[in-house]
Amino acid sequence: MNTYDEIIQLALERGFYFPSSELYSDANAGFWEYGPNGVRMKNKFLDLWRRELVRRDNMLEIDGSQIMSKNVFMASGHLTNFTDPIVKCKKCSSSFRADKLIQEVAKIDVPERMENEGVDDLILQNNIKCPLCKGEISKSERFNMMFKIEIGPNRDEAYLRPETCQSIFVDFSRLFKVSRGKLPLGIAQVGKSFRNEISPRQGLLRLREFYQAEIEIFCNPAKLNDLNKYDEIKNTLLRFYDTRIVELSVEEALEQEILPNKLVGYYLALLVEFFDKTGIDKKRTRLRRLSDQEKAFYSTVAFDFEVDTSIGWLELVACNYRSDYDLKSHSATSKTNLEVMDEDTKVLPHVFELSLGVDRCIYSILEHSYFIDRQNDDRVVLKLKPYLSPIHAGILPLIKKQEFKDKASKLLSNIRRDFDVFYDESGSIGRRYRRLEEIGTPFAFTIDHQTLADDTITVRFRDSMNQERIKIDEVHSFLSKQILF
Amino acid sequence: MNTYDEIIQLALERGFYFPSSELYSDANAGFWEYGPNGVRMKNKFLDLWRRELVRRDNMLEIDGSQIMSKNVFMASGHLTNFTDPIVKCKKCSSSFRADKLIQEVAKIDVPERMENEGVDDLILQNNIKCPLCKGEISKSERFNMMFKIEIGPNRDEAYLRPETCQSIFVDFSRLFKVSRGKLPLGIAQVGKSFRNEISPRQGLLRLREFYQAEIEIFCNPAKLNDLNKYDEIKNTLLRFYDTRIVELSVEEALEQEILPNKLVGYYLALLVEFFDKTGIDKKRTRLRRLSDQEKAFYSTVAFDFEVDTSIGWLELVACNYRSDYDLKSHSATSKTNLEVMDEDTKVLPHVFELSLGVDRCIYSILEHSYFIDRQNDDRVVLKLKPYLSPIHAGILPLIKKQEFKDKASKLLSNIRRDFDVFYDESGSIGRRYRRLEEIGTPFAFTIDHQTLADDTITVRFRDSMNQERIKIDEVHSFLSKQILF
Ligand SMILES: [Zn+2]
Ligand SMILES: [Zn+2]
Repeated sequence: MNTYDEIIQLALERGFYFPSSELYSDANAGFWEYGPNGVRMKNKFLDLWRRELVRRDNMLEIDGSQIMSKNVFMASGHLTNFTDPIVKCKKCSSSFRADKLIQEVAKIDVPERMENEGVDDLILQNNIKCPLCKGEISKSERFNMMFKIEIGPNRDEAYLRPETCQSIFVDFSRLFKVSRGKLPLGIAQVGKSFRNEISPRQGLLRLREFYQAEIEIFCNPAKLNDLNKYDEIKNTLLRFYDTRIVELSVEEALEQEILPNKLVGYYLALLVEFFDKTGIDKKRTRLRRLSDQEKAFYSTVAFDFEVDTSIGWLELVACNYRSDYDLKSHSATSKTNLEVMDEDTKVLPHVFELSLGVDRCIYSILEHSYFIDRQNDDRVVLKLKPYLSPIHAGILPLIKKQEFKDKASKLLSNIRRDFDVFYDESGSIGRRYRRLEEIGTPFAFTIDHQTLADDTITVRFRDSMNQERIKIDEVHSFLSKQILF
Repeated sequence: MNTYDEIIQLALERGFYFPSSELYSDANAGFWEYGPNGVRMKNKFLDLWRRELVRRDNMLEIDGSQIMSKNVFMASGHLTNFTDPIVKCKKCSSSFRADKLIQEVAKIDVPERMENEGVDDLILQNNIKCPLCKGEISKSERFNMMFKIEIGPNRDEAYLRPETCQSIFVDFSRLFKVSRGKLPLGIAQVGKSFRNEISPRQGLLRLREFYQAEIEIFCNPAKLNDLNKYDEIKNTLLRFYDTRIVELSVEEALEQEILPNKLVGYYLALLVEFFDKTGIDKKRTRLRRLSDQEKAFYSTVAFDFEVDTSIGWLELVACNYRSDYDLKSHSATSKTNLEVMDEDTKVLPHVFELSLGVDRCIYSILEHSYFIDRQNDDRVVLKLKPYLSPIHAGILPLIKKQEFKDKASKLLSNIRRDFDVFYDESGSIGRRYRRLEEIGTPFAFTIDHQTLADDTITVRFRDSMNQERIKIDEVHSFLSKQILF
């Protein structure tokens, strides 16, 4: 079994995530749910993101509607541009995403945004047939990936947002005003986005309903190198990838013109410093600068923050300098002036974006934390940072006698509101340790014979397997210190 | 201006919440967004809910897909039953929710779930015409309030969930197994639900897209009075409403058969203890037992937790004993046995539900915290609990000189990751205090001349307006203590 499959199995068996509507045969692909351990870990991951990006940089966070009006997507271009090429089998009527079909059958790379004609040519040239029935393949059409919604008795046309950032652009004007904002101003949002993928797959990696955590930095394009806080991060090391990985400080990267300006450097540094705290191995990450063919049409400079996994390099964050594309489009479509004052000048802000895929981050953290301890009976350990662990601590009465249980439940009720704790009295103590380690629990507290005598318990550490004795009434402060960010 | 309008104005002007897609004329009613202060407050409210309900009772929390397959809603009954009666004007084609139209025009009460014939009779008897053009009103039809979604190139039928609990029922079997669950087991979820209301209105109070925080307690119907933890809450006071409000302990209410069993009593007590911590005035709350006509069809016992507001009593939490309705339906439709073992017996669990409307809670907390201080220049103060305040503390340099700003920004960078702080240097110190009080900020730290000499600052307390001096390097621990739950 490869690592990807091992993670999926762990996720299913230990309640990290699993398919949605799985009782039913009509459940659609591309919808997953977070189970209890997944929710706890995702919430902690987002707390860290808020801490290291939103609060650190004094950003504003909003939480907007997922259903948005048609005009929003007229302005954003999604109604016309947000399409994938689709082909059908003329014999069995199966549908395929054309570029993926060509890639899989003919083993050739197809650019992300190829036109229909190019796609049709490739299908002919490579004599591609239906992989299910060998039938002939139709000409390609465009398939819009937004989900349409009809609202009220008049069936007004609206859409589930395909990216959270559109709420931020539409709300920018009010937010700038009510917060008495100054450029540069970061506005962030965590929430669901929706894409009607033609053929979703791979667990959390390509979903039709997924979590984004997006940050849009509104800035004055004339002042991209005028940033006091730049000094905070100028020595932070970034790993750039072109044909090979080069590690450079922000300052060096600016000098070598790998970074276009201080503002982009500053936010990439914050992003990288944030990821350093997630437990993802920095040596297996890179900032890949996108070529002109790969970039979204509105983007002038684009980096993907990528992480090496068992199934290849995975894009976790798209970092795009979107220029004034968004505010200009919304301004024109809504006939509203979206300029703001920056000191004494009126400016239509430009936007630099950090668009993070939450579900993929959760998967990547799980994979980079997954460890089989060959020295110790091949125990499976998730070496999660204590502050990201679904369960902070296990509480284990050594034997199933009432006085042990009483001590344990008293401890439980003292700490359960402030920490995620799991009480477990069934099975051998060894098996109970294994179950905790497998979901990344950093500490296990055991109530044993000595506890009854002197009110101390053992703390067992997940990674070292070392044990220490502490007083039972010091457990709360022990945990407070140990799970600090 | 009444209190409701004052709260809306505060919400709009200070970034608590505002309408979605507001740049555009085609924006639909019933969609709102949380601004920065709203997000901070909502997140803290949900943290408290997790603390006092989910973690306190060792519940499991999940986060499921919002788009669910058609069969889910065949089983749940929503495809056939989740409808409102709708009528149209034969002249101007306007649509109206029939029962609301009758209520407003004829000023008579119409039961929630009246059949079409009853509605049509009332329209005839009361000679109700179109309020817009006096045109004749059509016969009523049923309007299904679910939003339909078409998935993939084959347009598979699916729906946006109208309540979060359906994910919990569908996932129950896996969750019980992977968590090695024991009855009673609480499973919780926070997330968006969607209802295609015919005529939504009133800000956060009737939305088409809204947040629920639902808890489903799975239990053995033979053991509803067999609950050790009952002793924890037997003296908790609950306020029951029938024709008048009576305050009784859980134990008294059980004796008087106002509560059907200990399990229901236990969870209602947890709910009430949770609300005590939100700052909602307990004397303005009640548990209203629903009559048979008011209850949902699957419910055998139902209480609404209601709060008194300037626009009347508002339902914040629906507490339903749903019996085995849900698991039985899903079991039959999916042809899956959903029974589990409770010690040595197989049982199809019953469900007691606490279904909380998050947006209404936020509104109610704002209203109950809203205070105009007639003794002090009519200053507006949100007397929020410190742990629910959007901003924990303001940092205010007394004057705009560099050395004051330097001290302030050093303090800011020491605490900004762990707390929500707002730096403000513009305007008189009095005006800055006002702006902080209005959004409920409990503490303001002022950097003044003495700070430069001895590294102390003043803390000003929102409610008393008292001031104290503390050392600048004690601010972090001061806040840690003061904003404790
Ligand atoms: Zn075929
Ligand atoms: Zn009319």
